Amino acid sequence: MKKAIVLLSGGLDSATVLAKARHDGYDTYTLGFDYGQRHDSELNAAKELAHTFSINSHKIVKLDLRTIGGSSLTSDALEVPEHASYEGKIPNTYVPARNTVFLSIALGYAETMGAFDIFIGANAVDYSGYPDCRPAFIKEFENLANVATAAIDTNNRYVIHAPLIHLKKSEIVQLGTGLGVDYSKTVSCYKASDRGEACGTCDSCVLRAEGFREAGLKDPTIYRK
Amino acid sequence: MKKAIVLLSGGLDSATVLAKARHDGYDTYTLGFDYGQRHDSELNAAKELAHTFSINSHKIVKLDLRTIGGSSLTSDALEVPEHASYEGKIPNTYVPARNTVFLSIALGYAETMGAFDIFIGANAVDYSGYPDCRPAFIKEFENLANVATAAIDTNNRYVIHAPLIHLKKSEIVQLGTGLGVDYSKTVSCYKASDRGEACGTCDSCVLRAEGFREAGLKDPTIYRK
Repeated sequence: MKKAIVLLSGGLDSATVLAKARHDGYDTYTLGFDYGQRHDSELNAAKELAHTFSINSHKIVKLDLRTIGGSSLTSDALEVPEHASYEGKIPNTYVPARNTVFLSIALGYAETMGAFDIFIGANAVDYSGYPDCRPAFIKEFENLANVATAAIDTNNRYVIHAPLIHLKKSEIVQLGTGLGVDYSKTVSCYKASDRGEACGTCDSCVLRAEGFREAGLKDPTIYRK
Repeated sequence: MKKAIVLLSGGLDSATVLAKARHDGYDTYTLGFDYGQRHDSELNAAKELAHTFSINSHKIVKLDLRTIGGSSLTSDALEVPEHASYEGKIPNTYVPARNTVFLSIALGYAETMGAFDIFIGANAVDYSGYPDCRPAFIKEFENLANVATAAIDTNNRYVIHAPLIHLKKSEIVQLGTGLGVDYSKTVSCYKASDRGEACGTCDSCVLRAEGFREAGLKDPTIYRK
C-alpha cells in the first residue's frame, strides 16, 4: 500500500477526503493542527474520525498562528461574520497562508515518512473565496513540493490530491455518505461550542447546511439551541 | 518605506540579510521560529540582533516540528554529524521542508502586515546541499506566494529576496562586515551550548570558519573550550 498524508481538520471536507483516500487504497497518515483556532472541538472531532478509521498514528502539530494574527479565527480583535454570499470579497475568516503552512508541514511529514501523496480537502465551488482553496494554488504547491525536498535529487515526485476541488458541497456529502462517513462526527462551524455544537449562521455552517439540503440528505449537524 | 519580513534565525546568513534589507531601505519586521531545535541560543542571538538594529517588533512563532521529526536537529534519535564535504548526499541536519514552512508563515505574516517583500538567508554555494536553499526553490516559492494569498485578486506581487544565494561564505561575511554586522552576536553551530559557544566541527561551524579565513577576516566566533 502506498503511504499518503491526509490533512484532517475534523470538518466535513477533510473527513470526506480521508474516506476517499482510504477507498483508493492508500495507507493513510492523518495530520491536524492546533494553530490557535477559536475552539478545540474540531481537533477532538479529527481525533474521533481518525479513530473511526482505525488510524493510530493521527498527529497534531502545535503551531501558534495567533503570533501573526490577521484572521477572525486567529485574532480576538476580529469578529467572525455571519454568512454572506461570496462576491469577490474574501471574508475575514480567511487565515493568511493557512493552507500553504499546513501543506508545507504535511510535506515535511511526507518526506520523513517516505510518502509522496498528500491529500487536502480544498474546495473551490461552494466556498468562501479563499485563495488557497483554488486549483491554481494546488498546482503551484505541487510544483514547489517537487523542488523543495530531497526528492529533487531522485526520480520521486509528490502529488497533491485535492479530490473535492471541483465538487459542489452537495456532491461532497453524497460522495462521503456513499463511503460511509458519519458527518455527525464532523465539526465545520467557525464558532462551534466546546462540545462541537454549530451556530448555524456562519459561512461554514450555511454552506454545509445547503449541501445536505441540495443532496436530499438529512443534515446530521448538531446545532446550538 | 516599504515593509519587508526578514527571516531571522540568529545565524550568520540571516544577520547579513537583515543588514542588507535595512541598507536597501526596507522597514524590516523580523521573524524567528521556536521549532523544537536543539538549542535556544540561536533564538537568543536573533533577539539580540533585532535589538541591535532597533527592531521592537521581532516575533517568534512557536511550531513543534519535533512532532514530525526526520532531522538530527528535531529528533534526538539522530546524531548531528561532523563536517563532511557535500558531494550530492544531503546530511541529516536537513530539516524536511523547513524553509518551505518558514517562508509560508512569513507569507502569512506579510499578508497580515501588508508587506510584499520577504527576505531569506538561503545560500547555495558554501552549503550542505539542502534542497530548500537552491535558486529553483526560491523561484517556485515566489510563484506559489503569488497565487496563495488574497493578492491574487489584486495587482500586488510578492518578491522573495535571497540576496546571498549565489555568494560564497567569504563574500557573505565581507558583505555583512561592510554593513556593520557584529558576527560575534550570531550563532551558526548545530550543537551550540546554551551560551552560544560553537563546537567548531559540525558542517555549519566548518563552513563559517572557512568563510572568515578566505575573506581574510578575524573569526569572532566563540568556541567551546
